[in-house]
Amino acid sequence: MEFYHYQPLLDRPVRQKLADLQRNERLKHVIFAQQFSRQRLKHLGEIADMIRGLSRTEEGGIFLSQLLRHKRAMLYFTQASTRTFLSFQAACQILGMQCAEIRDPSLSSEFKGEQPLDSMRMFSSYFDIIFMRSKEPSFAECSAYLMNDLDRNQQRSVPIVNGGSGADEHPTQALLDIYTIQRSFSFSSPRDSKSSNRFDDLRRSYPSLTKGLDNKTYCFCGDIGRGRTVRSVAQLLSLFSNVKMIFVAPRHPKFALQRELRDVLLAAGVIVEEASSLRDVANQVDLVYMTRIQHEHNTPDDAKFFADLDDSLFTLNSGTMRALREYAAILHPFPRNTEIPFEIDSDHRATYFRQARNGMWSRAALTAYLFDIDTTIASHYREVFSTFHDYNQGVLGIT
Amino acid sequence: MEFYHYQPLLDRPVRQKLADLQRNERLKHVIFAQQFSRQRLKHLGEIADMIRGLSRTEEGGIFLSQLLRHKRAMLYFTQASTRTFLSFQAACQILGMQCAEIRDPSLSSEFKGEQPLDSMRMFSSYFDIIFMRSKEPSFAECSAYLMNDLDRNQQRSVPIVNGGSGADEHPTQALLDIYTIQRSFSFSSPRDSKSSNRFDDLRRSYPSLTKGLDNKTYCFCGDIGRGRTVRSVAQLLSLFSNVKMIFVAPRHPKFALQRELRDVLLAAGVIVEEASSLRDVANQVDLVYMTRIQHEHNTPDDAKFFADLDDSLFTLNSGTMRALREYAAILHPFPRNTEIPFEIDSDHRATYFRQARNGMWSRAALTAYLFDIDTTIASHYREVFSTFHDYNQGVLGIT
Amino acid sequence: MEFYHYQPLLDRPVRQKLADLQRNERLKHVIFAQQFSRQRLKHLGEIADMIRGLSRTEEGGIFLSQLLRHKRAMLYFTQASTRTFLSFQAACQILGMQCAEIRDPSLSSEFKGEQPLDSMRMFSSYFDIIFMRSKEPSFAECSAYLMNDLDRNQQRSVPIVNGGSGADEHPTQALLDIYTIQRSFSFSSPRDSKSSNRFDDLRRSYPSLTKGLDNKTYCFCGDIGRGRTVRSVAQLLSLFSNVKMIFVAPRHPKFALQRELRDVLLAAGVIVEEASSLRDVANQVDLVYMTRIQHEHNTPDDAKFFADLDDSLFTLNSGTMRALREYAAILHPFPRNTEIPFEIDSDHRATYFRQARNGMWSRAALTAYLFDIDTTIASHYREVFSTFHDYNQGVLGIT
Repeated sequence: MEFYHYQPLLDRPVRQKLADLQRNERLKHVIFAQQFSRQRLKHLGEIADMIRGLSRTEEGGIFLSQLLRHKRAMLYFTQASTRTFLSFQAACQILGMQCAEIRDPSLSSEFKGEQPLDSMRMFSSYFDIIFMRSKEPSFAECSAYLMNDLDRNQQRSVPIVNGGSGADEHPTQALLDIYTIQRSFSFSSPRDSKSSNRFDDLRRSYPSLTKGLDNKTYCFCGDIGRGRTVRSVAQLLSLFSNVKMIFVAPRHPKFALQRELRDVLLAAGVIVEEASSLRDVANQVDLVYMTRIQHEHNTPDDAKFFADLDDSLFTLNSGTMRALREYAAILHPFPRNTEIPFEIDSDHRATYFRQARNGMWSRAALTAYLFDIDTTIASHYREVFSTFHDYNQGVLGIT
Repeated sequence: MEFYHYQPLLDRPVRQKLADLQRNERLKHVIFAQQFSRQRLKHLGEIADMIRGLSRTEEGGIFLSQLLRHKRAMLYFTQASTRTFLSFQAACQILGMQCAEIRDPSLSSEFKGEQPLDSMRMFSSYFDIIFMRSKEPSFAECSAYLMNDLDRNQQRSVPIVNGGSGADEHPTQALLDIYTIQRSFSFSSPRDSKSSNRFDDLRRSYPSLTKGLDNKTYCFCGDIGRGRTVRSVAQLLSLFSNVKMIFVAPRHPKFALQRELRDVLLAAGVIVEEASSLRDVANQVDLVYMTRIQHEHNTPDDAKFFADLDDSLFTLNSGTMRALREYAAILHPFPRNTEIPFEIDSDHRATYFRQARNGMWSRAALTAYLFDIDTTIASHYREVFSTFHDYNQGVLGIT
Repeated sequence: MEFYHYQPLLDRPVRQKLADLQRNERLKHVIFAQQFSRQRLKHLGEIADMIRGLSRTEEGGIFLSQLLRHKRAMLYFTQASTRTFLSFQAACQILGMQCAEIRDPSLSSEFKGEQPLDSMRMFSSYFDIIFMRSKEPSFAECSAYLMNDLDRNQQRSVPIVNGGSGADEHPTQALLDIYTIQRSFSFSSPRDSKSSNRFDDLRRSYPSLTKGLDNKTYCFCGDIGRGRTVRSVAQLLSLFSNVKMIFVAPRHPKFALQRELRDVLLAAGVIVEEASSLRDVANQVDLVYMTRIQHEHNTPDDAKFFADLDDSLFTLNSGTMRALREYAAILHPFPRNTEIPFEIDSDHRATYFRQARNGMWSRAALTAYLFDIDTTIASHYREVFSTFHDYNQGVLGIT
């Protein structure tokens, strides 16, 4: 089967594709961030929290590590992304699933004579789920359609999870970002570690902030125009009510907020603002999502533009940090350049390393969900925390 | 130890080597397809079937995944073959064995200063079995002799499994091909999925076909002269009675059936025929084993020959499919070029993806056998299927 | 965080660093061979022996493989060393820990834009221990300091184990060498396999030799001046009493014993001798530690020097073997060139392959220790061997 066979399916708008990617009310494949509704985000966030909570004890860790020990995952990463790869692998390992990997481009060249979908069907013969990342934008989507064809034909079919395809889609990055934001705005939760940050003190001062993702002001800063991460997470945040977003980017048609995203957000009822200095808006926002300038994609003209630009406008310097609210979480999808200096790492608002760790928890939650063991996890969690602990008290410790 | 040390052992005919590769009546190393007798093929096919059957339930999958959890496998693939590699790895994972891998040629170059057999002995220090694939034809065989030397010296020794050596030997490919043929001719087996194909209906029409590998006509089509796969599987099929083989290949001294194989088959009592068009013979055969033309090995003269050749003679086009018997399984070792068009993938006779999956089951069976847990598996299988199910009814579902 | 941030810490003498690498009386990170005291070497050797002993039975292997099944290790090997990599991986697998790996330099280049310590902190988010090998001498040490900073800040922190950094440090190689020497001088131990060597007979003749590492004469032969391995193991051996060391090396300022090491050994009370022919001293030594000439580091002048040198002076030829005491173990860190001919592999004194296997046991012991399960192992070991077996009789078999 070749990609062009699926061209009519590919050409549809995303909203018409969603039904193809689920079975009854559950996701079957994960290809687009748009597959995550508010309700699914809430559910996956809760499962992620439970996995995290169970992992704090040896008993819980062992319980989790036995759930999928008879299953095997393929991590097919022909576009290198070690960070995302490791996060998926750790997620599988938490659930005890064995992993096979292809992440050496020179190994994948071996398949050159072969139709890519033949490879995918081969993998689906050996493994029970395929996590894939590819430069080819529609590869994951076509793989999902191939699996659907097999399914219809009563043949073996496995879930496809898009770990980043081309410049377009990276749904699990959006998922982990939302999970991190969920965690940030539930910081009064008794399940939070009281030792790892100053948020305990903050609970008293800002009680309303702990009530979820509605009614917040989000700031996105950096290379907004070229950032697929910002696009996805902003779209998911637009599912919430009374949301304001401030985009801080260079005034330049390629790097500022693009019209397409702006229109989508406005249509969803988001209040959209733009600014050209992070410091100017720092005192108005509940959360800052930093991104690096993707200089590797610069044309010579772009490079010249940035050479003349004042970097500090999009940098978390000490002045900006002072202006920033004391509870405002700082996120960053990493890697970073200089937009977040190292000194900030020890600030209690620096959430970007926890965000990376959240990637592991939320990918484990998604994997558990796809294998239909999310309810098993939830039952066990409730049992453990009602029997041995006070559920409201939770577990302490750094996770 | 260097290879030349074993030259006298290497220079023997294969039949004189077989005793060195077994202990009492059991295989100790797997180097040559000729090590598989009819009886061993039957036994390994049954174990593969049991592993497949057990894997259908979570309980069975967990049972299997605990059998070798305290063992470690080395997958030493200095000749890249991702497909074979993944199949072996999945086989190990089914049995819960942990894997280490070397499959990056640039990593193996690190060993350049070192005698290859020093590396093998090193691996045998860390791991409990070595699966290896190498360009060097005699590397696996020499490794087996080294292990035998250690054994005689009462030192640690582990099984060596040849995952493909040079252009010569690929015994586990032959094993999986035979297993697929066993499955194809046992399609009346109650253990077969009734949903995945039309074979249920066919049982009534062709009852004699379900009685094993004797009395059949096998067709091999494509690059017969250069195909190591065809050579191995044809030799194993010659162990069966009243077998006819039709070789469909270009009329060319390099690509047609080679005299050496022909003589071996005739000596074994096979009826050998040759043809130059698949369509002409399609209505006479019980099974078609397709192969691709290995253009990567062409000389300029070969390339010219193929440029002038009519490809369709060795292709499963729609006319050939109509001529082909309705129960005739189509196998292919993959990857394919154009000799099997994608349209055929959904035909109920297309067995080549199941063949790939069979590679995993038969390699798991072989590994179980080498660790002497085949009887454990058989006992558990009989217990499960006599207690909880009607053994004759089997388990449904797509595997 | 960048390396220079830790420059003041890096600039201290090693003895001032030791406190930073432990917590109370236990090691927290393993960066320097100097962290191993006599007492720790004894403890780790005993744990290694217990892990080896338990691995001999399926029950024991399964016990071990469940200890860390809920933990995950990162093997970050940006400097290729397949041998060391596999040894660490096998050690993790013995304890059931799941592994992730980075060992392709081209993958690590992906991190080029990123500060290396950002990568390490990311890994520490996903994994529970980091084994690392790097060309950058201070990378492992800085990573340990970064973890300490996180720890102080009540953030997640994991142990760092140096698997070889630059030309300087390779503490786990020293650990496995010492364990092999411990084993060599405890050959009267009832736990030794009586079948694998002639040491049983030797017990009667040399009873005093089995009483540990004190009062011995150690010989180091080969590229002494450039050998980091020799430097580390000699320093650890200097912890023992009444030790004599004979260094056999070419008479050349770069390849002979360096003044710095000589001074350290003399200060520790070691009797230091130098020789320029292995054969001349073979009959005086209790153990020979062979090394290869590292020709890959030769300047043109060095190459000329070696071209004119008589290799046999630093080679275990048959004359030397005859002169060597019948109980003197031969070690070699491998890979070898021609300094140990293959014929010697079957000599009962050849200990270098067992040394490699010891690397796995001693790394497993170190890992168990770092996860604080060494006492769990010791308890189980005593229980098993007092209940089911006669402790003094031990378990037979080749391990």
